[in-house]
Amino acid sequence: MDINVSNKAIEEATEKLSNWGRWGAEDQIGTLNTIEPSDIVNAGSLIRKGRSFGLGIPLDTKIQTGLFGGRWNPIHTFLATGTDAYAGNQADNGLQYADDAINMPIQGSTHWDSLNHVYYKDKMYNGYDCRLVDSKGGAKNGIEHTREKMVGRGVLLDVARFKGVKHLEDGYGISNDDLDACAAAQGVEIRKGDFVIIRTGQQEKCLKSGDWTGYAGGDAPGVKFENCYWLKGKDIAAICADTWGCEVRPNETTEVNQPWHWVVIPAIGITMGEMFYLKELAADCAEDGVYEFFFCAPPLNLPGGTGSPINPQAIK
Amino acid sequence: MDINVSNKAIEEATEKLSNWGRWGAEDQIGTLNTIEPSDIVNAGSLIRKGRSFGLGIPLDTKIQTGLFGGRWNPIHTFLATGTDAYAGNQADNGLQYADDAINMPIQGSTHWDSLNHVYYKDKMYNGYDCRLVDSKGGAKNGIEHTREKMVGRGVLLDVARFKGVKHLEDGYGISNDDLDACAAAQGVEIRKGDFVIIRTGQQEKCLKSGDWTGYAGGDAPGVKFENCYWLKGKDIAAICADTWGCEVRPNETTEVNQPWHWVVIPAIGITMGEMFYLKELAADCAEDGVYEFFFCAPPLNLPGGTGSPINPQAIK
Amino acid sequence: MDINVSNKAIEEATEKLSNWGRWGAEDQIGTLNTIEPSDIVNAGSLIRKGRSFGLGIPLDTKIQTGLFGGRWNPIHTFLATGTDAYAGNQADNGLQYADDAINMPIQGSTHWDSLNHVYYKDKMYNGYDCRLVDSKGGAKNGIEHTREKMVGRGVLLDVARFKGVKHLEDGYGISNDDLDACAAAQGVEIRKGDFVIIRTGQQEKCLKSGDWTGYAGGDAPGVKFENCYWLKGKDIAAICADTWGCEVRPNETTEVNQPWHWVVIPAIGITMGEMFYLKELAADCAEDGVYEFFFCAPPLNLPGGTGSPINPQAIK
Amino acid sequence: MDINVSNKAIEEATEKLSNWGRWGAEDQIGTLNTIEPSDIVNAGSLIRKGRSFGLGIPLDTKIQTGLFGGRWNPIHTFLATGTDAYAGNQADNGLQYADDAINMPIQGSTHWDSLNHVYYKDKMYNGYDCRLVDSKGGAKNGIEHTREKMVGRGVLLDVARFKGVKHLEDGYGISNDDLDACAAAQGVEIRKGDFVIIRTGQQEKCLKSGDWTGYAGGDAPGVKFENCYWLKGKDIAAICADTWGCEVRPNETTEVNQPWHWVVIPAIGITMGEMFYLKELAADCAEDGVYEFFFCAPPLNLPGGTGSPINPQAIK
Repeated sequence: MDINVSNKAIEEATEKLSNWGRWGAEDQIGTLNTIEPSDIVNAGSLIRKGRSFGLGIPLDTKIQTGLFGGRWNPIHTFLATGTDAYAGNQADNGLQYADDAINMPIQGSTHWDSLNHVYYKDKMYNGYDCRLVDSKGGAKNGIEHTREKMVGRGVLLDVARFKGVKHLEDGYGISNDDLDACAAAQGVEIRKGDFVIIRTGQQEKCLKSGDWTGYAGGDAPGVKFENCYWLKGKDIAAICADTWGCEVRPNETTEVNQPWHWVVIPAIGITMGEMFYLKELAADCAEDGVYEFFFCAPPLNLPGGTGSPINPQAIK
Repeated sequence: MDINVSNKAIEEATEKLSNWGRWGAEDQIGTLNTIEPSDIVNAGSLIRKGRSFGLGIPLDTKIQTGLFGGRWNPIHTFLATGTDAYAGNQADNGLQYADDAINMPIQGSTHWDSLNHVYYKDKMYNGYDCRLVDSKGGAKNGIEHTREKMVGRGVLLDVARFKGVKHLEDGYGISNDDLDACAAAQGVEIRKGDFVIIRTGQQEKCLKSGDWTGYAGGDAPGVKFENCYWLKGKDIAAICADTWGCEVRPNETTEVNQPWHWVVIPAIGITMGEMFYLKELAADCAEDGVYEFFFCAPPLNLPGGTGSPINPQAIK
Repeated sequence: MDINVSNKAIEEATEKLSNWGRWGAEDQIGTLNTIEPSDIVNAGSLIRKGRSFGLGIPLDTKIQTGLFGGRWNPIHTFLATGTDAYAGNQADNGLQYADDAINMPIQGSTHWDSLNHVYYKDKMYNGYDCRLVDSKGGAKNGIEHTREKMVGRGVLLDVARFKGVKHLEDGYGISNDDLDACAAAQGVEIRKGDFVIIRTGQQEKCLKSGDWTGYAGGDAPGVKFENCYWLKGKDIAAICADTWGCEVRPNETTEVNQPWHWVVIPAIGITMGEMFYLKELAADCAEDGVYEFFFCAPPLNLPGGTGSPINPQAIK
Repeated sequence: MDINVSNKAIEEATEKLSNWGRWGAEDQIGTLNTIEPSDIVNAGSLIRKGRSFGLGIPLDTKIQTGLFGGRWNPIHTFLATGTDAYAGNQADNGLQYADDAINMPIQGSTHWDSLNHVYYKDKMYNGYDCRLVDSKGGAKNGIEHTREKMVGRGVLLDVARFKGVKHLEDGYGISNDDLDACAAAQGVEIRKGDFVIIRTGQQEKCLKSGDWTGYAGGDAPGVKFENCYWLKGKDIAAICADTWGCEVRPNETTEVNQPWHWVVIPAIGITMGEMFYLKELAADCAEDGVYEFFFCAPPLNLPGGTGSPINPQAIK
């Protein structure tokens, strides 16, 4: 496709691709509706080796570098420790134990974005008013509605390996043709209701170097704006990547920030997974040539949440 | 069994049931080692209806009532809101969006406890010194080691339904015979490597009444101390319940607090799941008579964590 | 005064009492402008005994009981401990030390409210649009503007003692006449630029019983709505009390919640201090008969904050 | 003085300078005991111009750069906003209002360190066992004991100005002779019970450049180890500076980290103030030649805290 990315292109894509009302006026989960029970049963049959891959990056990775939105790196503190136990401070017929706590932005590490995370012209997916998300929570489209829905067939599209590189360069826009060619080369078909996971290799570059500058909000490889048409055409359940925001940065326009987001969340209603850790899964897929698997990535049951931290499981 | 629960009984059980060294001196995941790849493949075949049950209780449930350890109810705050968007405060070519954050004790809602959560005589599972868990984290036996391991066959033992009650009474000690009789009545076999989930109904009582007084640290139905022998005998992967702490309270002794914990985590090395939400899963199992399912409950990848909040999936 | 408290009464008081523009269109500190340098110098001369009274209630007091706004009790966690040091975990030529952190709602314990805390018809004090306070902060009227202003003459009005009771009853509305009679009985004059502190005794009742039910948002003694006229007439700098919200609860109307607040913060622009701990100061004033003192209650320098936790000092 | 800074020098200084027992076996405030009521009264007479200087740096300054102890920059979040009000989400007869919260390490910005912050050979000031500070709090020497004590005579020693530079260079060790010469040049006497504040200018360099790299834990100007003898000789109440840790970095030895701290907190029992914002106070003192003032810097009343964030007031 040859799209001049702009406010106009966003408006046009929004009109053409909208799923508002497709699953009823009350729907709050969007494209997760594309998954049929039979898809889940079929996906179960992809469990052949009995190995699960955890796709959550360690929460102590210092990803956030201050570029966007006041997000911080997860803070892990202890309410009780083994040193307290050792010191004899828990001796009063009590348990010797440790307790801890986590304080983190939802979008601070590997996570789902839910359908109340991004708006277009003051509206959420399915037409809900954006004012329904305030400091007290998100009254509509919160992540809790997906709490039993993140199960089905997963497919890895290892674009970096397909292109023969360790990682795509920052600013490289993955085209729809790239995705189709990658799937063909991998011998895997994209089907309605799939969880599609794109590997750019960018995260592994950061993991290797230890340098996360720019990862969270700077330049990155990612899908081009045209990808919104691909998503809708394939009718997939969710789109995931190993980058901060799935789409290419710098964006293809300076008119708006993150143009693809403006369409895919509010109009299409697709759940998005970001910062997936893919190294070992990708190596395994390259080795056995099997790029499909059972996928299970339950969000925390956080009412009103704009998403959830996750540790997705790809089970082969 | 007829055990006089005491420090002596704990010491005796520790000696008899210890799994230290069984999976090597470096092991950090304990009984999760009992799961074979073939168990996971076989569990995949239990996915027959294509329906997943989310077992995480909503994080806005006010469970913590101040009885134990300074834990608080999860705090959900927003870094950006739809009302900000509506007010025009995100207008500068920016995304209209909301962001949020969660601050919660690991043990504050549905969660896994990892093997660095409880100690006995200054030692963790597999002999690690409890001083390895300090304010900076847990250098051994942290939850991150289980990040790909929480997958396999799940079995529900609906003891409340088996006993013909909506919920077991606080203080009711579930015996090993109760568990065996319940499994037999349900027509389900407990196997090596299983994730066994016990339903007492206590949580549903609280959910119905809205009164959580005592749920987190007060009296409760739960397994008797003798259960540690049952766990080891069955060689299961993990034990879970719908209560705060799995074991009966008041405890069967006043000598120590939570005697069963003193054995099952440090000696046996079993991962424990607590505060599971079981209402709909239990209703479904009662209806179709199938008490086994594919189970997937990935923890967050939290290095050094004493556990993780989770939303376990039982997939039938 | 005899006011029928209502939306209409609020509107009327707003018109009559407004300080908008009085200290310029750019002003962000309201009645704190009433303090002249000479007032501070004169207040210095009230330091006669060389004793300071700390008016901040301990931060571990469990004040918040869930009645209002999702506020929580302060959470105090440790990043390093003496037990870590003792365990030898800080041995690498390092300091033996402890570190901690505090996580608290600004309005969760003894605090100042700043002029961006309450609005009337979408406007803050001095006419600023309430949209200037969003999830990213308060662009106008934040507490940081008062960072050098909380210094001057303090006066205690011990209404409970004046009335001959340990504590005023919940629902007791303190009238303007009560305040004037109390000041007269105490032999103290209220002057322009004063920090006036009202003691109801309610907090001490809770401290004694340990029961905080209702303290934060339930019924309470406090000033009547008519007090807004008194504040303006006296032209004081700030009004403080030992209660959660200074004004009487149940409010004198059911039309609106906290009617006095609707006038005194947005229209008059007065800084308000709440939950002051007054026991020892009040005892000392009763003993020596001196109800005036040097007052210094610096807020944290929190840009955009709607207030600050404080430990005010009354120095005699 | 000519000290070869080492473990041995620390041991020797500890023996010579110890204040253990000086104010009784139960004392928990150390050198703050040096302040007499008459000192406070006299300090009141230093209030001559009626102007207060706030010495707390804004809490949104990004000081923490990951060099030490897992500390983070203060996190300021909102529980309610003006945009919520504007959106009509608070319309139900409710107040229009905003609420916020602060989550910060005690040592993350301008703060007091209390006497349970640093230990020597497992002991706190006055001989208390360091195990008394665990994940649950600090049972001894917590900041709450000083809640009414941070009041008295303050003196600024503007070493940078005295040396004729905008800021002392990182690594510059301020000698005792420097301090005495600076005081003499300023015409101010250091007295028993004083709050002494040292200005190096380093913070202003960072504020000007916006570059905080190294400020929190990297190289810095500061007092030499010998300063511990000066502190004890002068018998002052507290020592404060505009730097992260008062003492010179790199330290004068590689044997230990922060050698001066090892002596002054545990042995001398001096309260320490760090990261004070001094620009305007220093300019004023230079202008009027008056380097003494009334000082009031109340800590939050945080039981067991290793310190407190503060906004100290220097009142002239």
